[in-house]
Amino acid sequence: MYKAKLHIKFKEGVLDPQGNAVKNALKNLGFVNVNSVRIGKLVEIELDCDNVDQAKEELKSMCDKLLANPVTESYEIVSLEEIK
Amino acid sequence: MYKAKLHIKFKEGVLDPQGNAVKNALKNLGFVNVNSVRIGKLVEIELDCDNVDQAKEELKSMCDKLLANPVTESYEIVSLEEIK
Repeated sequence: MYKAKLHIKFKEGVLDPQGNAVKNALKNLGFVNVNSVRIGKLVEIELDCDNVDQAKEELKSMCDKLLANPVTESYEIVSLEEIK
Repeated sequence: MYKAKLHIKFKEGVLDPQGNAVKNALKNLGFVNVNSVRIGKLVEIELDCDNVDQAKEELKSMCDKLLANPVTESYEIVSLEEIK
């Protein structure tokens, strides 16, 4: 069994309305030195694979097919470890 | 200027309907060895602070006041670096 953490976030230059809304809310709460806020997804997946390479391939395929919008989002496997 | 990456995710035991929906969708796409999926937020913040300790304190305060629901979510500062 493997446990992966993925980051899925907007590509550079893609507008992030949610991030902007959070930035404005933070400023209204008095956090005046916030310069920018970008919000993405943290996806934690447990999957049953024979080896780490197979797990990596499956995770990439999951991102390409479902988890990440190829036009506006990029993804990154930030951690992948074997768990008992 | 500092750049931080935060993970905001459901606490252990809190139901994650979005994660379950994604798990079922992945299984329908043929990813039968997916055991579990949990979905959280990746928040990237740039803020103007005098030093890293001040940045850390401000980030914690932002999470406590706005970014993380204290009842159902936990947060973690996964990276904090100075940028020019």
